[in-house]
Amino acid sequence: MRLRKSARGLIRLGELGEDRLLEQLLPHLPRGKGVVAGAGEDSAVVNPPVGGDFLVLKTDCIIEGVHFLHGVNPHDIGWKAMMRPLSDFAATSAVPQFALITLITSAQTEVEWVKQLYRGLRRAARRFKVSIVGGETSSTPGPTAISASVVGFVEKDRWVTRSGGKDGDDLFVTGRLGAAMTRKHLQFVPRIAESRWLTKNFSIHAMMDLSDGLGVDLPRLARASKVGFKIEMENLPLNRGVKIDNAISEGEDYELLFAISPRDRDLLEREWQKKFPKLPLTRIGRLNRKSKIKDQKLPRGYVHFQQPG
Amino acid sequence: MRLRKSARGLIRLGELGEDRLLEQLLPHLPRGKGVVAGAGEDSAVVNPPVGGDFLVLKTDCIIEGVHFLHGVNPHDIGWKAMMRPLSDFAATSAVPQFALITLITSAQTEVEWVKQLYRGLRRAARRFKVSIVGGETSSTPGPTAISASVVGFVEKDRWVTRSGGKDGDDLFVTGRLGAAMTRKHLQFVPRIAESRWLTKNFSIHAMMDLSDGLGVDLPRLARASKVGFKIEMENLPLNRGVKIDNAISEGEDYELLFAISPRDRDLLEREWQKKFPKLPLTRIGRLNRKSKIKDQKLPRGYVHFQQPG
Repeated sequence: MRLRKSARGLIRLGELGEDRLLEQLLPHLPRGKGVVAGAGEDSAVVNPPVGGDFLVLKTDCIIEGVHFLHGVNPHDIGWKAMMRPLSDFAATSAVPQFALITLITSAQTEVEWVKQLYRGLRRAARRFKVSIVGGETSSTPGPTAISASVVGFVEKDRWVTRSGGKDGDDLFVTGRLGAAMTRKHLQFVPRIAESRWLTKNFSIHAMMDLSDGLGVDLPRLARASKVGFKIEMENLPLNRGVKIDNAISEGEDYELLFAISPRDRDLLEREWQKKFPKLPLTRIGRLNRKSKIKDQKLPRGYVHFQQPG
Repeated sequence: MRLRKSARGLIRLGELGEDRLLEQLLPHLPRGKGVVAGAGEDSAVVNPPVGGDFLVLKTDCIIEGVHFLHGVNPHDIGWKAMMRPLSDFAATSAVPQFALITLITSAQTEVEWVKQLYRGLRRAARRFKVSIVGGETSSTPGPTAISASVVGFVEKDRWVTRSGGKDGDDLFVTGRLGAAMTRKHLQFVPRIAESRWLTKNFSIHAMMDLSDGLGVDLPRLARASKVGFKIEMENLPLNRGVKIDNAISEGEDYELLFAISPRDRDLLEREWQKKFPKLPLTRIGRLNRKSKIKDQKLPRGYVHFQQPG
C-alpha cells in the first residue's frame, strides 16, 4: 500500500483509517517552541505561559451548510476554521499559541480533500505562529464539521473584556463592514496585530470581534458594560455597494469593535494612521448612560438557532 | 417570555436562540478556583499552572449514531462526552482543570434535552473538579455531536507517554475488559486517581487508556516504545460472559494499560490491593525485544473510518 503516492482524490477516508490518515498529516503540522509533545500522543503537552500571564482558551467550530457551502475550496475552509477562534484572541488582546483540531466528516470524504483542509489550517496557524498540537477525526453520516480549540496567553494588564465600557466612551471599528459573505469570510485575517498594538499603547475599556454583525454584537458589549449606545449611522464604514442594514446584520466581518476614552481620540487616530495606513479606523458612535428610553434599534445580526421573523 | 418556567420539553432550540440558551446554562456551570473569566466572554481566561509544570491539552468528541444512539439519556451522553478526554488525562497522569464544550445539534432539538446533557457534563466535570469555562452551540442539519476540549497540568517528573516501554517490562491493566458497550461506556469513571497514585509511587515506563480495544491500543503502545509484546491470553481480566476476542476488540473500556519494571511487581500488587481493593489490577503479559517474527496477532479493536474486512 503506497497511499501517499497514489492519493489523487480517489482514496476515501473509509479505505484509509484514522491511524494512517494521521500518519500522513502529522509530519506537516507546525510545531513551534513550547511544544513538548504534540499530535500523536494521548494528550498534547506544552510549556505554560511565563509567570504573571493569564492562560486564554477558546473553541470554535464551522459546519458545512451553515458556515461554508459544500463545494468550497477545502483550503479556505481550513483557513476559516483556524482564524475564527483566533479572532476571539484578537478580541481579548491575547496571543494564541497552541491549537487542537477536531474533524468530523463522512467516511466517503476524499483523503485529498482532508489534506487540502489541513493545508489551510496549517497556513492559518503559521500566520500567527500557532502550533497544531493535536488532531482528531471522527466519522459522521451528516455534514462535515471542523472545530479548533486554541490556547494562548495574555498579560494581566493587557487583557480586555466586553464589560469595561464607560458612559461617554468613543466606539471605534476597524476595517469596513458588510458583504463579508461573498468572499472575505473565508480569507479574513484576525486583527491580532492591531489588538496587541492597541493594548500596548492605549487603555482600551472594552473590546470584541464582530462575528455576528454589529447589530447583535454591539448590544452584547453594551449589555456587558451596563451602558447604552448611540451609533452615527452615516459614519459607518461600509464596503462598496453595501446597504447600512445589511452591513449591520450580515455578520462575519471579524473586525474589532472597541470602547476608549474620548480623551485618547486624537492621539489614537493619528498613531493608527501611521501604524496601519491601509486599514481604516472609524469612530462610529459612543456609549452613554443607560436610559429608560430603549436602546437604539439595530437590525439584528446572525444568531445561531434563531429563526428570522 | 418566561421560557425558564414553561420549558417542559416543548421548546426547541430554534425558538430560543443561542444567547438565551447560554443565559440559562451558564449560571450552573462549575467554576472553580483559577478561573478568571469563564463562559460568556469572548475567550476563557484562567490562571496557568504553577512554574515547572507542563500544560496538557486534549480534545475529544462523540457523535450520535457513532458513539451513542439516538434515544439514549442525554445526561449519560454529557457524562461520556466529558469523561472521554479526561481518560486521556489519566493516560498521561495529568490533572484536568478547565473544559470548553462544543455542542452541534439541530434547531429541532428540545431545550430540555440540552439542559439534561449539560447536567451530565457538569456532574462529570465536578467529579474531577474541572471548571467548564466556555460553551458554544451551533446548528446542524445532521446528527448531534458534542466535543469537549480540556486543559490541565502534569508535573514534569510525573508525565507518562506511550513511548517509554522497555524490553522485559510487565504489562498491567486495571479493571475488567469487554462488554463495555452494553452500559459501562456511558457511565465510566476515568482512572485519574489510579494513574496519579501510580506515578506518585512508582516509575511507570509507558501508559495509555484503552479506548479502541486492547487489540488496537497495545500495538500502538508497543510501536511507540519500539518493542514487541506477548500477552498471556488466559490471564486477561474479562467481564462476566465475555469472550476473549470480543474483550480485545470491542473497545470503550477506558481502563489503564501500563508498562513497569518487573522489579516493582510485588510491591505494586501489594500496595494496589491496599489502596484500590475493589479494582482488579492484572498482569496480562510483557513487552519484549522486537523480533523479526511478527508481533502476536490480536483481534483488532474499533478504528475510526476503517471498515471491517
